[in-house]
Amino acid sequence: MNRHILVMGAGAWGSALALHMHRTGARVQVWARNPATRLPTGAMPRLPDWPLPSDITVSDAIPAKPDLVLVVVPVQHLASVLPLLPAGVPAILCCKGVERASQTFPLDVLVRVRPECPGAVLSGPNFAHEIAAGLPAAAVVAAPHMDQALTLAAAVSSPSFRLYASDDCTGVQLGGAAKNVIAIAAGTAMGAGLGENARAALITRGLAETGRLAAALGGQPATLAGLAGMGDLVLTCTGAASRNYQMGLALGHGAVAEDAAAALPGVAEGVTTASALLGMARAHGVNVPIIETVSDFLAKTLTLEEARSRLLDRPLKAE
Amino acid sequence: MNRHILVMGAGAWGSALALHMHRTGARVQVWARNPATRLPTGAMPRLPDWPLPSDITVSDAIPAKPDLVLVVVPVQHLASVLPLLPAGVPAILCCKGVERASQTFPLDVLVRVRPECPGAVLSGPNFAHEIAAGLPAAAVVAAPHMDQALTLAAAVSSPSFRLYASDDCTGVQLGGAAKNVIAIAAGTAMGAGLGENARAALITRGLAETGRLAAALGGQPATLAGLAGMGDLVLTCTGAASRNYQMGLALGHGAVAEDAAAALPGVAEGVTTASALLGMARAHGVNVPIIETVSDFLAKTLTLEEARSRLLDRPLKAE
Repeated sequence: MNRHILVMGAGAWGSALALHMHRTGARVQVWARNPATRLPTGAMPRLPDWPLPSDITVSDAIPAKPDLVLVVVPVQHLASVLPLLPAGVPAILCCKGVERASQTFPLDVLVRVRPECPGAVLSGPNFAHEIAAGLPAAAVVAAPHMDQALTLAAAVSSPSFRLYASDDCTGVQLGGAAKNVIAIAAGTAMGAGLGENARAALITRGLAETGRLAAALGGQPATLAGLAGMGDLVLTCTGAASRNYQMGLALGHGAVAEDAAAALPGVAEGVTTASALLGMARAHGVNVPIIETVSDFLAKTLTLEEARSRLLDRPLKAE
Repeated sequence: MNRHILVMGAGAWGSALALHMHRTGARVQVWARNPATRLPTGAMPRLPDWPLPSDITVSDAIPAKPDLVLVVVPVQHLASVLPLLPAGVPAILCCKGVERASQTFPLDVLVRVRPECPGAVLSGPNFAHEIAAGLPAAAVVAAPHMDQALTLAAAVSSPSFRLYASDDCTGVQLGGAAKNVIAIAAGTAMGAGLGENARAALITRGLAETGRLAAALGGQPATLAGLAGMGDLVLTCTGAASRNYQMGLALGHGAVAEDAAAALPGVAEGVTTASALLGMARAHGVNVPIIETVSDFLAKTLTLEEARSRLLDRPLKAE
């Protein structure tokens, strides 16, 4: 019998993952708060070029016992959606960032809201429209124990979308959160005309400070050199499709933060994430100059010129 | 008295470094095989938009005792230029890649040709035209001993072009060489329409295998996560100005290797480097699937479709 997969969330990423799982031969059911939004073509509005096959149902019903649930809602909506999770079914959280109210990562929200549910996170360099198109990609599935991670990674993997297993939930979740902050810095540098050398240096030094923060939080710095760290960071800082990078570009051109955020088609998660990660870093005594500069710049306690000189005028040292 | 800097080589990178050192207040002299090539504006032909100030001399003369020499010739020309080095003066080699004849890195060539000269290498994410413009950038100066590296990094650094010190010459030189090979892979993936997710995964997995090779060669994998590794790789795989990436794009579009190479304005070092690094990896028993695939594809023992499936059809495992 085909595996039965529930995808909770029908945005661009949820729709793309539903298509992907359908291609693996699974029976796919999509939960959406407002299922009437399906377009006449069968596509969901946030991924309009990719109609979902008619045997993918989209409804507000939750089945009693699917084999696996992919939770694909923004991190700020997790706490309101997780109570609907079917009991005792493994859940893979497919969102990135930090919950604003609690300043914690997605798996922490799961443990708080549904402590009895086994959970994992999926994170990596994945633009939804490319996954929908079936183009090759890779990402990481992290769970507290490696055997869980290997099982869940294999359950989601296909020849074109390859999932690697990890037991470093902290490192994987930090990578998915921090990349949006560094993307704002990289976009701001490009918008201000500082050039590609400066962007490459910011990306590199930004990943280095994220690795230090990972170690302080109990994660593995090596995770940040992988798909959920460097891979996603590179995609976010160079792909034109990234909201956070676009917001940085606008800020570098001189827009104020509210205007830059308002001009975006969706949420720039990095704005929330910057102050949250800075709080974690301070609590653990970790120096994160790029995250700190982005946070202060977004909070308007720094001008663009001050942000630039704070990053450039640091003393020289070994790398 | 101002420091006296000799820049050997008057290509784009040599001209940019001459301008940079001049801005630090140094007295700068450029050596060129054919000094008559200076344009009427004072610029060198390979960096035509940036006239060199008239007090930067360009000639085929070698001063007896400058304070520092920057050797900025292609790695394949190193062995013919190094005999001209003034004796007993520290030399920073500012080239990347592998010498074809010996299959060794730039500092190995220096030790072979001028074993009595103290040497270092400079490497990082640096497009010459941005350094010429005085835009902010960072790179690494690596020497066998950290005190040498710190001294030489400080001698070249300025507030806008920051040099970090390293004693991992192997890691820094490997990063500067391997990035051109991975850029060919990344360009090929983009040219073949595989998308940005695939490019980000190739960049990440390419850097991971380069880190394994670094460890086997006696370098430090962490160096590959720094400016001379990840930083330069990101710049090379995403900046339109990279010759190796451009060559990959053409190959992905279906051009054969000779045609793709002939269409470039300069040398795509990655072609030479791919087979050299593969030889090093085999000698040390290191698995480098991306470097191997690029090498075999350039040698035409693999088609584009075979190269794609070789990279995509590998077994799943922990990252």
